[in-house]
Amino acid sequence: MRTFERLESEVRGYIRSFPTIFKTARNAVLTDQHGHDYIDFLAGAGTLNYGHNNPVLKQAVLDYVNADGIVHGLDMATSAKKDFLNAFEQRILKPRHMHYKLQFTGPTGTNAVEAAIKLARKVTGRRNVVAFTNGFHGVTLGALSLTGNRKYRDAAGVALADVHHAPYSGYLGMEVDTIAILDKLIGDPSSGVDLPAAVIVECVQGEGGLNVAGLNWLRHLEQLCRRHQVLLIVDDIQAGCGRTGGFFSFEQAGIAPDLITLSKSLSGFGLPMALLLLKPELDVWKPGQHNGTFRGNNLAFVTATAALDHYWADGRFQRSVEFKAGTVGAFLDKLVSNYPAAQMTRRGRGLMQGLAFADPALADAVTSIAFQNGLIIETSGGRDEVVKLLMPLTIEPERLLAGLDILEGALAEAVSHLPARFVHPNQEVHA
Amino acid sequence: MRTFERLESEVRGYIRSFPTIFKTARNAVLTDQHGHDYIDFLAGAGTLNYGHNNPVLKQAVLDYVNADGIVHGLDMATSAKKDFLNAFEQRILKPRHMHYKLQFTGPTGTNAVEAAIKLARKVTGRRNVVAFTNGFHGVTLGALSLTGNRKYRDAAGVALADVHHAPYSGYLGMEVDTIAILDKLIGDPSSGVDLPAAVIVECVQGEGGLNVAGLNWLRHLEQLCRRHQVLLIVDDIQAGCGRTGGFFSFEQAGIAPDLITLSKSLSGFGLPMALLLLKPELDVWKPGQHNGTFRGNNLAFVTATAALDHYWADGRFQRSVEFKAGTVGAFLDKLVSNYPAAQMTRRGRGLMQGLAFADPALADAVTSIAFQNGLIIETSGGRDEVVKLLMPLTIEPERLLAGLDILEGALAEAVSHLPARFVHPNQEVHA
Amino acid sequence: MRTFERLESEVRGYIRSFPTIFKTARNAVLTDQHGHDYIDFLAGAGTLNYGHNNPVLKQAVLDYVNADGIVHGLDMATSAKKDFLNAFEQRILKPRHMHYKLQFTGPTGTNAVEAAIKLARKVTGRRNVVAFTNGFHGVTLGALSLTGNRKYRDAAGVALADVHHAPYSGYLGMEVDTIAILDKLIGDPSSGVDLPAAVIVECVQGEGGLNVAGLNWLRHLEQLCRRHQVLLIVDDIQAGCGRTGGFFSFEQAGIAPDLITLSKSLSGFGLPMALLLLKPELDVWKPGQHNGTFRGNNLAFVTATAALDHYWADGRFQRSVEFKAGTVGAFLDKLVSNYPAAQMTRRGRGLMQGLAFADPALADAVTSIAFQNGLIIETSGGRDEVVKLLMPLTIEPERLLAGLDILEGALAEAVSHLPARFVHPNQEVHA
Amino acid sequence: MRTFERLESEVRGYIRSFPTIFKTARNAVLTDQHGHDYIDFLAGAGTLNYGHNNPVLKQAVLDYVNADGIVHGLDMATSAKKDFLNAFEQRILKPRHMHYKLQFTGPTGTNAVEAAIKLARKVTGRRNVVAFTNGFHGVTLGALSLTGNRKYRDAAGVALADVHHAPYSGYLGMEVDTIAILDKLIGDPSSGVDLPAAVIVECVQGEGGLNVAGLNWLRHLEQLCRRHQVLLIVDDIQAGCGRTGGFFSFEQAGIAPDLITLSKSLSGFGLPMALLLLKPELDVWKPGQHNGTFRGNNLAFVTATAALDHYWADGRFQRSVEFKAGTVGAFLDKLVSNYPAAQMTRRGRGLMQGLAFADPALADAVTSIAFQNGLIIETSGGRDEVVKLLMPLTIEPERLLAGLDILEGALAEAVSHLPARFVHPNQEVHA
Repeated sequence: MRTFERLESEVRGYIRSFPTIFKTARNAVLTDQHGHDYIDFLAGAGTLNYGHNNPVLKQAVLDYVNADGIVHGLDMATSAKKDFLNAFEQRILKPRHMHYKLQFTGPTGTNAVEAAIKLARKVTGRRNVVAFTNGFHGVTLGALSLTGNRKYRDAAGVALADVHHAPYSGYLGMEVDTIAILDKLIGDPSSGVDLPAAVIVECVQGEGGLNVAGLNWLRHLEQLCRRHQVLLIVDDIQAGCGRTGGFFSFEQAGIAPDLITLSKSLSGFGLPMALLLLKPELDVWKPGQHNGTFRGNNLAFVTATAALDHYWADGRFQRSVEFKAGTVGAFLDKLVSNYPAAQMTRRGRGLMQGLAFADPALADAVTSIAFQNGLIIETSGGRDEVVKLLMPLTIEPERLLAGLDILEGALAEAVSHLPARFVHPNQEVHA
Repeated sequence: MRTFERLESEVRGYIRSFPTIFKTARNAVLTDQHGHDYIDFLAGAGTLNYGHNNPVLKQAVLDYVNADGIVHGLDMATSAKKDFLNAFEQRILKPRHMHYKLQFTGPTGTNAVEAAIKLARKVTGRRNVVAFTNGFHGVTLGALSLTGNRKYRDAAGVALADVHHAPYSGYLGMEVDTIAILDKLIGDPSSGVDLPAAVIVECVQGEGGLNVAGLNWLRHLEQLCRRHQVLLIVDDIQAGCGRTGGFFSFEQAGIAPDLITLSKSLSGFGLPMALLLLKPELDVWKPGQHNGTFRGNNLAFVTATAALDHYWADGRFQRSVEFKAGTVGAFLDKLVSNYPAAQMTRRGRGLMQGLAFADPALADAVTSIAFQNGLIIETSGGRDEVVKLLMPLTIEPERLLAGLDILEGALAEAVSHLPARFVHPNQEVHA
Repeated sequence: MRTFERLESEVRGYIRSFPTIFKTARNAVLTDQHGHDYIDFLAGAGTLNYGHNNPVLKQAVLDYVNADGIVHGLDMATSAKKDFLNAFEQRILKPRHMHYKLQFTGPTGTNAVEAAIKLARKVTGRRNVVAFTNGFHGVTLGALSLTGNRKYRDAAGVALADVHHAPYSGYLGMEVDTIAILDKLIGDPSSGVDLPAAVIVECVQGEGGLNVAGLNWLRHLEQLCRRHQVLLIVDDIQAGCGRTGGFFSFEQAGIAPDLITLSKSLSGFGLPMALLLLKPELDVWKPGQHNGTFRGNNLAFVTATAALDHYWADGRFQRSVEFKAGTVGAFLDKLVSNYPAAQMTRRGRGLMQGLAFADPALADAVTSIAFQNGLIIETSGGRDEVVKLLMPLTIEPERLLAGLDILEGALAEAVSHLPARFVHPNQEVHA
Repeated sequence: MRTFERLESEVRGYIRSFPTIFKTARNAVLTDQHGHDYIDFLAGAGTLNYGHNNPVLKQAVLDYVNADGIVHGLDMATSAKKDFLNAFEQRILKPRHMHYKLQFTGPTGTNAVEAAIKLARKVTGRRNVVAFTNGFHGVTLGALSLTGNRKYRDAAGVALADVHHAPYSGYLGMEVDTIAILDKLIGDPSSGVDLPAAVIVECVQGEGGLNVAGLNWLRHLEQLCRRHQVLLIVDDIQAGCGRTGGFFSFEQAGIAPDLITLSKSLSGFGLPMALLLLKPELDVWKPGQHNGTFRGNNLAFVTATAALDHYWADGRFQRSVEFKAGTVGAFLDKLVSNYPAAQMTRRGRGLMQGLAFADPALADAVTSIAFQNGLIIETSGGRDEVVKLLMPLTIEPERLLAGLDILEGALAEAVSHLPARFVHPNQEVHA
């Protein structure tokens, strides 16, 4: 590890939580250089929905590279890109009756977000964009202005302007209708909140602590956008690509966003790729006006196509995700009721669930112990108070259960170290 | 091509200049789906310095993927990353007596630029950054504010703030010392140009039209930065990785930037990767404060390591680049003198040279004809007036000459279509 | 009026509502060039609390000018300024146990606001400022960013940045605790609402439609500021100087703002003057760092001193204002109940009350008819839906009643023109 | 003075340079409370061009107040305003064949500047404004962004955006054509300097150190604006109203600005007033869109009208100013040559001249000694290195000479305190 300390910037993060050197990986298991295995409940922060080195995708990589396929293509036309376009249309858009055009942005989520807000501002001629509390949309300057967490915001060094941050679904308690508040502010010519170009929302906030937007809340948000002629952007970078069951996280709500950002698991193999879906009537770009050297990462197109063909040709994959999500949810419910001293609540949706702890230190203890016991799992949320279970969607059932067992063990151990007043809170109410 | 028209956003660009569907590629030759070959004088806009599907790097990819190496690793420690760190230290830093730490940013140049200016602002507590006329640094909001070209700037939809754009080396003619102007503005407490956190500069402006910073100009710029305690950032995304001969474009000038951005040809294989080099004393990042899903693109680390080991273990590669650069320069000089009607000047340095035309329409005609004759080459510059020769550094000599021949043919044909008054300008001075 | 149309910019406003040329004025009566008298329920938008050409102040002006007193003094020491400082300390600060220093800003309210937010940002090192819905703080760029009304905001032409607009007291209905919402957003490190330097608030929103902050709301706001170490700015430009009874509008709430802006009726005679009161420990200004040519308008100091000595040496003036406020309130309540078809609610506090109409057109009709009948009165509010009664505090009782009678007459006439379905709304509920 | 120290903010400035309490004043003489007289070479920083308590204007004030004229009128029509409009048209606009409309802004220069840039941005739909090195345009946020001096800029606490600061006439030495530089930057679509809405310029920079724009430079600036369809704003707040001879400082250059700001000596009596002149075709304001409580300071209109009628009905006043300017210029030239050790250069134009010292400490010493000897005079410039002579234009000849004598005495004394190496620089060249 001395190499990393000597040469890598202090900005490095996960290496501190998981301090070993990883070498190989298959599906939901990572193996370090000493041959130790770790079950992966992190999945590249949602990038490896189809697991590490998924054999279907791996074969596609090998075949393509062996055949000297174009690897890097800017935005020239290539066979690989054409295949991806067709597959995306056939497997994703058509079955859902969706009409969108595809913009290949620089291959990072933050770049797709930057393209989305640029386009929204260009189309509407307005500056303001509404983003939500606890939202995370990236750390380049435009996306950073939409991101809620002070840790990232403080690093900007300049103003993060032209964004109004509004309370998310449930942020003010279930009895407060946060859509109504936003509606009043936007519709009131004297509120000081300028009519926005767009609203950007995650249906489940991955980094923000697994907060879930209510389905009706999403529908009301869409109606609010239509009423004020504001564009609706769904940032589906973490929650999309099957993570919550359907390919898109908003399918259950039945809404039709104007712009959709995708990245992370889009390529399926962990290769950088990002996409902006836009309704055709919004396509006012001039050629090359938003560019990026790696927007034609053809190797990623190849694996993305393979993933679409293999997993999204029918409904089986989605059903398996939903089944596993049920398993995880039931398990977490059990933990919540069996360990009252931990003061947890279950959060999330699909295979994007977790446990929110009253005390962030306990969440931290759980993930540390879990790593020692062979489970890779991280915290999220504004105070890092939520343990987030983000396994590959393709995880084998027995591996899933094994991981959950390690998690319970870590929780039990962490709780056992709590001072007595936390373990028996009812008896300690006057403490 | 109908697939692209139906499904891909109007933002697509190169597909319009090179309207065919490419399928495979080796070194400096692209082959389309009809089996037609094209010599590549574009090289992924400087991303394929080692050619398409370089066999050394290709084998590294195949071996790594076959062995189920970690593909996506966030910023966890991996064997592939460790190998890259060591190789970069051994092959690049140590031989040049450079002491830097490495920050793996999101795998796009623009992300490395965003990290650089964040860090400069954080370290100095200042907001302003000086960028230069015709500079191109990316299109995410922070990088876009540094970029000169109105085409990109107009798409922001919001203010591009906290940047002062200053005249580049030679921008006001060779007799005007643009460093002296900047020095006076920065040093004058009443100029209105706030003391900057940093100055960001490209030693050769790739997108800006192959403008070359004088070596003394670069040295004076470094001195200016030291004098005012301003950080010097060299954006070596396009000009680095051997493009001008040395690994860094600033080596000839003998300067020591505080921050250096690298991307494009860093991975060597066209895989997305970016890096920020920072002097150790500037490393004030908090863990994870600048993040990005794909900052651990391990497949790119593998090819990057292979490229460093293969091409940068000794000086042979650099010498071959310099030799080819001499060939290109001599050829372009010949064109300039043989086709006076085209009113061209030679631009650039190393294998980053080109021809600036008085009339942008002529530059456009040359590249169009060249494509019809089997050469892929683009224009750059604020008015797209510069034909830019950006072949792989590994191009075979005979292929290089063949490409240059096509270029001359295209030039000859384009000139032959000029109205008489352009072809014989001396006789037409009164027209 | 042709002179005005030919030479004055289209920006002119009140001249359109009150289209006659005024020549002289005394206390609450304006007289036009044809000798017609108008009762003044506008009072220079709150600038003439002591009436037009108040004889006490008028004599002070004549004496001072006759004696060749300094009229314009920059921020040099003058006898007139010294007298004002002493009078302000004796008449205002000491009796209220207030410890503040005085900053003489440029003589407009907006300038005092700009100084306040500059100082708050300088002291705290933070950028963000919280302002409230329907707030009005001026139209220079810094103050404009705090102002809610779109009409003014749209004229900026640039971003209005570094401000979060939050719901005012009662904005979301009486059952929603808007302080709790703000508290959560400010205290949450992941909300996206950056910890502000300051909160700026009007205790009664004059331009915003006579919205009144609850006294407990103000106390909770002060507590919120203390809890988060955020500065509290009360903008008392329109509501101060006795308009709500006490010299400051926040006295009833018993809070102690960190910064207080005063202007409008401060000079008492309609002469431009503005003041920023600051707690001594916040006085981190460098000499001259916020300046302004007319910050030493000594003629205004003279009338301001006379006003303080004459009206604020004891409690009689305040009691008379409160008595008149009771008269006005009772009268408005009577109108509300007697004219149900007008669908009005009473708004405001002290001698800053009015009637909010469901239909802005009706408010407009009332003020138009009132002018024809000899009463000058304007509308305010985000939709110009509130008729605002802002008579001089010194208005003679019989003149006050005469004005109220004209108002009732105008209301009766306007209502008589309503379509039947408005006049008898109960019978028309299914319409 | 204890009152001031106890109660007035540390921001106070001139009181530190001139530490006595002033009581009365007539024309160019201020008298303190002890009866000491001081000759005034400051004139309210250019606000008292017609002297203190000018008898013509004083009588107008007394008559108007005695007659209960409207003092405060918002932007209602009043007789006083109508008289001013007519006088301005007759005395100023018509004789100069100028066609402008008048906007009465809040009565401070900074407010007129804010209105000017708002309107320029509104008309053009562009954001950027070009301002010049050493320019001073006010300290409210919009005007502050145009102001060059770091002392003021540092107090903003937020970004000063949407402005490009360009080198003023002569800033880079007489051999560098700063208009050509600006022309290239603005006309180049890839310079990064966005096409501006407007250029704002002072013909003589008062606060910036009495830098004078060349007449040809101004003409070329106007041509540049026309060529790029950019609006030209002349900020004539300090240099206008006769200070350089003509009513406007740009008359000699023969240019026709699109927008002109006036304030300071406009009212003539030291009463706050400001005006924006705009070409009729630019008058796109909506009613009330830029407002301000004191924009109808009618007492100022009365004195402004009297000043126009008395001083600008014919050319005598202008000729007297030019005569005195000649006297001052010759005197300063003499000082420059008689006191070589002081290393001075003469600066300025009209009755807005001064001495620039190589060493700011010497400028400071001169003004301090002068004050002790009965002369009020200040420094200006980015380093406070310029002693600025800004006497009332109406100063009596003998008083002018008396003031100049005090100045020379102060200079002689300050120089006598210099170390020997400064006094005899030629002998000390090797020191």
